[in-house]
Amino acid sequence: MPEMNRQWLLAARPQGLVKPSDFEFVETPMPAPEDGQVLVRNLYLSFDPAMRGWMEDRPSYVPPVQIGEPMRAGSIGQVIESRHPELKLGDFVQGTFGWQDYALAAPGLANPVPPGIPLTWAMGVVGVTGLTAYFGLLDLGKPKPGETVVVSGAAGATGSVAGQIAKLHDCRVVGIAGGAEKCAWLTREAGFDAAIDYKGERVRERLRELCPNGIDVYFDNVGGPILDDCLAQIAQNARVVLCGGISGYNESEPPPGPRNLMNLVIQRARMQGFIVLDYLPRFGEGVGKLLEWVRAGKLAHREDIQHGLENAPATFLRLFTGKNLGKQLLKIAEAPLGNEPQASEGS
Amino acid sequence: MPEMNRQWLLAARPQGLVKPSDFEFVETPMPAPEDGQVLVRNLYLSFDPAMRGWMEDRPSYVPPVQIGEPMRAGSIGQVIESRHPELKLGDFVQGTFGWQDYALAAPGLANPVPPGIPLTWAMGVVGVTGLTAYFGLLDLGKPKPGETVVVSGAAGATGSVAGQIAKLHDCRVVGIAGGAEKCAWLTREAGFDAAIDYKGERVRERLRELCPNGIDVYFDNVGGPILDDCLAQIAQNARVVLCGGISGYNESEPPPGPRNLMNLVIQRARMQGFIVLDYLPRFGEGVGKLLEWVRAGKLAHREDIQHGLENAPATFLRLFTGKNLGKQLLKIAEAPLGNEPQASEGS
Repeated sequence: MPEMNRQWLLAARPQGLVKPSDFEFVETPMPAPEDGQVLVRNLYLSFDPAMRGWMEDRPSYVPPVQIGEPMRAGSIGQVIESRHPELKLGDFVQGTFGWQDYALAAPGLANPVPPGIPLTWAMGVVGVTGLTAYFGLLDLGKPKPGETVVVSGAAGATGSVAGQIAKLHDCRVVGIAGGAEKCAWLTREAGFDAAIDYKGERVRERLRELCPNGIDVYFDNVGGPILDDCLAQIAQNARVVLCGGISGYNESEPPPGPRNLMNLVIQRARMQGFIVLDYLPRFGEGVGKLLEWVRAGKLAHREDIQHGLENAPATFLRLFTGKNLGKQLLKIAEAPLGNEPQASEGS
Repeated sequence: MPEMNRQWLLAARPQGLVKPSDFEFVETPMPAPEDGQVLVRNLYLSFDPAMRGWMEDRPSYVPPVQIGEPMRAGSIGQVIESRHPELKLGDFVQGTFGWQDYALAAPGLANPVPPGIPLTWAMGVVGVTGLTAYFGLLDLGKPKPGETVVVSGAAGATGSVAGQIAKLHDCRVVGIAGGAEKCAWLTREAGFDAAIDYKGERVRERLRELCPNGIDVYFDNVGGPILDDCLAQIAQNARVVLCGGISGYNESEPPPGPRNLMNLVIQRARMQGFIVLDYLPRFGEGVGKLLEWVRAGKLAHREDIQHGLENAPATFLRLFTGKNLGKQLLKIAEAPLGNEPQASEGS
């Protein structure tokens, strides 16, 4: 057991685009579990656009990360010391262990990873990002067979799953993503009917061509001008699912909203936001469905795995520069007690 | 029977604020009903912000008024010549007869006014404006006892009814209106718990003071900065009912939308537009309820009645300069065959 724990602390409230100096890399004494706690060796960190919001000092759905605290992040680790009967040495657990090598946890805050699948899937396609797509699309978007569904951030961890679930519900699906490579993946691997490269194409014109009868469901991960373009093309009784607004996350004040908001009136349409944590009681249902689809080869998914805790800030930045292809992860260690499940045929 | 019919035609697509020269006052030959038609003497014209949208040459929920056509408007008239057995001489009928002295109509486009109430009520508190408040607030807003409801355009024909229906459902109701006189009417006559004068007060700060637990339902008639102020203060699971956006109706391009849109995500809130015409099959239910409340003295309402067809454009402008107090009407004639119902005790 090492004597010290490496941690990335939040050092400053970011102004605009988050930068490495907003964090500080420190060594602190190894924590020791008390009765009822376990010590977890962090193995993988998850990177999600919503983390940018946690860094702001304002009321939100979770308290802000405080200056001097380890940066908060979803993660998966292995129990290496246990003072709780429910969690055993070598167990793989999921929690919000943050940007650090080691963390203390207790049952409820450290949950077993579903067995028989690669650990990384539990942070992506059958994890919170997949669940976000599942509940957002189905509960709020309510897609019906034959309807047209548009997804932005479509090559991302959540968008790609949302679009494929729409396909599984017999919808026509158009994805919006940045760059030819992402767009090619959408149509060739993920089964989208069409893709729009917002960096090289005029989104509003392309939507008019590709969605001549209007957009019935728009699953929005980006906000900003693309949300406005989609609102211009909504069909009657459309549902706009507000999942995120990454285009505005690094602005010092929120950018102006869409000019086409009145189309919600003319088209009798609905725009609705949600937080996936509210669906916690139904996570089992969602994980079950996602796992079934993944195992049946019906959900293409990609992971972008960077390496080394020292690279946490740089990995986080990849989200906002659009460098990641699929779920952004950082591997920070091999499982010290071994037995990490691997992807295998049939799983 | 006169030989000529006076009409206000749409002469030009308005640029910015609508102006008298966008219309042309003409005399055309008296129309003569064919078999199955009736000739209606227009008595009252209704003025509604939505009419501004009908003047734009763009797809919407109704076709645009064409240049050279009489300006479209809800109205009430008396049948003065009938070639249809269902409509008799002297009947009072409601329809979209437009800015003219006389119009041809047929059953389905000329509907009997509910008996026993002043004609003007059928255009306001128990007419389309009241129904807009009724269905928008109850079907989309779904107010629950004890919740906080905020209404903008609160002294207007729709807003004032929406706020009072919320009070009848045991909500705390805050109205936003322009000017001390309108605000005083809201709290003294219409039973609102509080009123904010957006012309003299800082709306966002006042909302924070008056709605410390957040806004559960926001019934929006105005859009623009006031919508943004309300979004800043929504409570978890809030419902934003988009009824109209008068603040932007006279802009040559739609103004930018609200910066606080992401609050819909953080607060898991919903924003929804509607068109009252979709509720046509339920108009009977709505009229029945509204009439019951009016007769029981539970719905304060005001009418702003101007006079003379020649003043139609100037009357329309009152809506956009905020001059009207309550439902804006224009009386253009006395009923030629008499018997116009009057307000009386108990009705």
